[in-house]
Amino acid sequence: MSDRPSIVLIGGGGHCHSVLDVIEQENRFHILGIIDDNLPLDHKILGYSVIGADADIPKFNGESVYFLITVGHIKSYSIRLKLAKLLEKHKYKLASVISPRAYVSSHARIGRGTVVMHNAFVNANVEIGDHCIINTHAGIEHDAVIGDFCHISTGAIVNGNCIIEKGCFLGSNSTISNGKNIVRDSIIGAGTFYK
Amino acid sequence: MSDRPSIVLIGGGGHCHSVLDVIEQENRFHILGIIDDNLPLDHKILGYSVIGADADIPKFNGESVYFLITVGHIKSYSIRLKLAKLLEKHKYKLASVISPRAYVSSHARIGRGTVVMHNAFVNANVEIGDHCIINTHAGIEHDAVIGDFCHISTGAIVNGNCIIEKGCFLGSNSTISNGKNIVRDSIIGAGTFYK
Amino acid sequence: MSDRPSIVLIGGGGHCHSVLDVIEQENRFHILGIIDDNLPLDHKILGYSVIGADADIPKFNGESVYFLITVGHIKSYSIRLKLAKLLEKHKYKLASVISPRAYVSSHARIGRGTVVMHNAFVNANVEIGDHCIINTHAGIEHDAVIGDFCHISTGAIVNGNCIIEKGCFLGSNSTISNGKNIVRDSIIGAGTFYK
Repeated sequence: MSDRPSIVLIGGGGHCHSVLDVIEQENRFHILGIIDDNLPLDHKILGYSVIGADADIPKFNGESVYFLITVGHIKSYSIRLKLAKLLEKHKYKLASVISPRAYVSSHARIGRGTVVMHNAFVNANVEIGDHCIINTHAGIEHDAVIGDFCHISTGAIVNGNCIIEKGCFLGSNSTISNGKNIVRDSIIGAGTFYK
Repeated sequence: MSDRPSIVLIGGGGHCHSVLDVIEQENRFHILGIIDDNLPLDHKILGYSVIGADADIPKFNGESVYFLITVGHIKSYSIRLKLAKLLEKHKYKLASVISPRAYVSSHARIGRGTVVMHNAFVNANVEIGDHCIINTHAGIEHDAVIGDFCHISTGAIVNGNCIIEKGCFLGSNSTISNGKNIVRDSIIGAGTFYK
Repeated sequence: MSDRPSIVLIGGGGHCHSVLDVIEQENRFHILGIIDDNLPLDHKILGYSVIGADADIPKFNGESVYFLITVGHIKSYSIRLKLAKLLEKHKYKLASVISPRAYVSSHARIGRGTVVMHNAFVNANVEIGDHCIINTHAGIEHDAVIGDFCHISTGAIVNGNCIIEKGCFLGSNSTISNGKNIVRDSIIGAGTFYK
């Protein structure tokens, strides 16, 4: 049906809408459908079908399809973590999705299962882990390190040389001062300046 | 003189400067000139002429020209509302202007007389009313609804699933938390986080 | 070796990393190397060599090379000022660097030795002085004036008609209200709204 690899998204809420938009613009994947426990089969999300529930995840042919977790992460990432373990158990391939509207430096590294949304930027020498959300308009400055399962929300800015450890949630439009270390599983309030 | 439709801007202040820049970049309209009550005829604004005052608005041929209100909206939109009623009375055509530097999802809807300025983003499933200003670097996240006559100022972020009712002013770099409802004619201070 | 003019960067820290990324994307200069007092000769920064210390600055052939100060400016710009005087004394040519990912209005003017980083915007009728840093994602709105040696940090927004005098530091994600005058050598805290 398509020369492009297929992708299945897990989670059909609002974050999924944004990610669908990015995948369409990136035009690198054929969107097979969405897995969601709370939506009926064949329910349409921006024109794409719900094709199963979490219990169906083990039934896929792991050779021919990529997966991406599109459950949102507001404060807690426990559902995303559980799903990631399930995908890992089945040795499924994880997609990384980068909006063509984002800027990712050629000197940066992006993990597996991570999305970089429209208008975000990832500057020189940055390292981003697996299963992260670098949301719309967010920015990661030079030499920063972002651990696995972090959500850098819309418009948030991580300044140069910061280390954001695993599982952090940085609220919308928050700002992290140069060179700070945000410890594991921290929640930084929206609109705040962390210094 | 030009195959492109003509446009007349109403209001020659600072917001007009920004909009002129966007219209030039969009390159979709021939700029006929600017209507302003406080500037002399033939006064130049970025090279374009003041061609009349508000009293001249009824004299145009509504078949051949589009209109856009470029009076700013800081806190109050009463002048913009009055002008909109005047344009409506004459059944004039309203331009919508979208910067080629902005991102507007193909899953979003934009009203008439609305401008989306440089570097702004309008994400999937968003609905924006008439006569709105989505200013430079502002962002509207997935599934949000913006009523008529709203000004989302520079760098402000409306997060997912918000409803911003008619006539709201969201100050520069303000942030609206996910799923909030901002009631009609609200003023949200610059730099604040509304939760 | 290259038809493009050569450029030497002075200062090899984090800000230099970001600037190197911009110069690469702009693709207008051949990067000759970096001058740094604290790094050994031939040390590599994103693949480019340290080629000398400040004491070597007078030894260049000023006809064939451009210079850009890439020492950062957090709060104080005294080192940048001292280097600028040295470059001036030798009548060296100053590079201005504008990311192709930034937006600079054709109605704006940018000084010498100034950098406009990725995703920044400089709107209509803006005037920016010499040796400024308009950092990633920062925005300067219509009709604003930015003096020499200002650093508008990541994500900061200067709204319309502001005057930012010489040597100001506007912290990350700070916001300046419309029409304000920020006096010489001011420091505006990150994340704050100045009204």
